[in-house]
Amino acid sequence: MNGRICGIGVGIGDPEDITLKAVKMIKESDVLVCPKEDLGECRAYQIVKQVIPEVEDMDIMPVEFEMTKDENKRIHNHRRIYETVKKLVLEGKIVSFITIGDPALYSTYSYVSDLARKDGIETHSISGITSLTACANRLGISLCEGREQLHVIPTIDDIDDALDLPGTKVIMKCGKRIKTVKEKLRSKVGIDVYAISGCGTSNERCFRSLEEIPEDEIYMMTMILKSR
Amino acid sequence: MNGRICGIGVGIGDPEDITLKAVKMIKESDVLVCPKEDLGECRAYQIVKQVIPEVEDMDIMPVEFEMTKDENKRIHNHRRIYETVKKLVLEGKIVSFITIGDPALYSTYSYVSDLARKDGIETHSISGITSLTACANRLGISLCEGREQLHVIPTIDDIDDALDLPGTKVIMKCGKRIKTVKEKLRSKVGIDVYAISGCGTSNERCFRSLEEIPEDEIYMMTMILKSR
Repeated sequence: MNGRICGIGVGIGDPEDITLKAVKMIKESDVLVCPKEDLGECRAYQIVKQVIPEVEDMDIMPVEFEMTKDENKRIHNHRRIYETVKKLVLEGKIVSFITIGDPALYSTYSYVSDLARKDGIETHSISGITSLTACANRLGISLCEGREQLHVIPTIDDIDDALDLPGTKVIMKCGKRIKTVKEKLRSKVGIDVYAISGCGTSNERCFRSLEEIPEDEIYMMTMILKSR
Repeated sequence: MNGRICGIGVGIGDPEDITLKAVKMIKESDVLVCPKEDLGECRAYQIVKQVIPEVEDMDIMPVEFEMTKDENKRIHNHRRIYETVKKLVLEGKIVSFITIGDPALYSTYSYVSDLARKDGIETHSISGITSLTACANRLGISLCEGREQLHVIPTIDDIDDALDLPGTKVIMKCGKRIKTVKEKLRSKVGIDVYAISGCGTSNERCFRSLEEIPEDEIYMMTMILKSR
C-alpha cells in the first residue's frame, strides 16, 4: 500500500460530533500529526482521545504551526513540517493530520497538502463538523433558509464592508477584539446578534443578544449576525 | 422523559460522513420523519439505512415539503407537518427529522422547529457534514485559508453581485441553470472554477475547470469559485 497524507476533521469540541469515517481513518493511520506541541493543550487530540482511547498507543507527531505574521517564517515552518511528513509517506506510511473543524475551512493542514500535491504525493481529506453549523445548532438557530446568503468573515478587519452584505454573517474568532466588534454593531439596526464560546466543550457559553456578550477577551468566540 | 423534536444532519451522500451523535440520536428516536414521501427517493433515509439497517424496523413518518413558490401554500404545508409532529411530541415521543447536510443550513427542518419553539416545545439539533466542505474535500481543494472570506450563494439570481465579492464563492444547486452560470463566468478572470455533482454517491462527478462542466441539467451540483 502506498503512503499518503490525510487531513481529518474532528469537529470543534463535542467528541460525538466526529464522523464514522474520521474514526475509521484515524485507526488506520500509521502516524497521527497533532497541530500543537503540547498534547494536553491540543484540542483536536483531546477530542479524539475521548472517542478513541487507543490513540494514546499510536505513533503521535506533535507539530507547532507558527502563528507569526512574518510570511517567510510561516512558509518556512510549513515546509519544515511537510518535509518531515514526506519522509514518512515515502516509507509507505499513512500520515494523518487531525484538525479542528474541517480540513477545507481555515485549517493549517491545507498548507501541507498544497505542498504535497505539488510533489505528486497522494492527499485525501475527510470532512468534519465546522464551527459554522456546530455553533448555530447549539444556539438553536438556523443560519440560512431559502434564498438567504451566508458570509463567513474570518478577520474583523473586514467587518465594515461585510456588515452591509445581505443574509447571515458569521464572524470567526472575534473574541480577542470583541469590544471593537460590539461598538460597530451598536449602530446597526435589524440584526439579531448571537455568539458562542467554547462550543461543545465544558466551558461553553451562549449569548443571544449584543448586550449579553461580555467585553473581556474570549479566545474562541464565534458570532452569528442574522438579518431580521 | 419529555417529548421533543430533533433535527439530525446526515451529511450529503457518503454514509460514513454521519457523526457518532447522529447515529446515537436516530437510534434513540421514537419516530423518524423523512423529508420525502417516497422513501426509495429519500436521500436522507437511504444514507441512514446504509449505516443503521435497523432503521427499517423503526416508526417512519415520510412527509413531503412542498417546493411551491406560493408562500401561503408553503406555510400551510409546514404547519400541517408540524401539527402532526406536535401531537406525537405531546404524547412524550422523541420525533427526529433526518435532513441532508446540516439542520442549520438551508434545511426544511428549520421551518418546523421555528413553529415548535413558538409553542414552547423543546427542540434540539445535531450537526451534519454540509455540502460546502464535503464537496471541497472530495475535489481535494481547500475553501479558504487565513483571511479569505467565504460566501454561500443559494440562488443564481444573486450571482452578479456575488461574483464581485472577495474570497471564495460557493454556488449551491446551480445544476438546473448551469448554462446561465457558465455564460456569466466566461468573462471573469482570476477565478478557478470547480464543480461537483452527486458528491459522495456512486454518481459522483468532479469538474476542475469551467470547460469541463457539462451544460446539460444536473440536479444537485455545487460550484466552488476560488479567487487566484
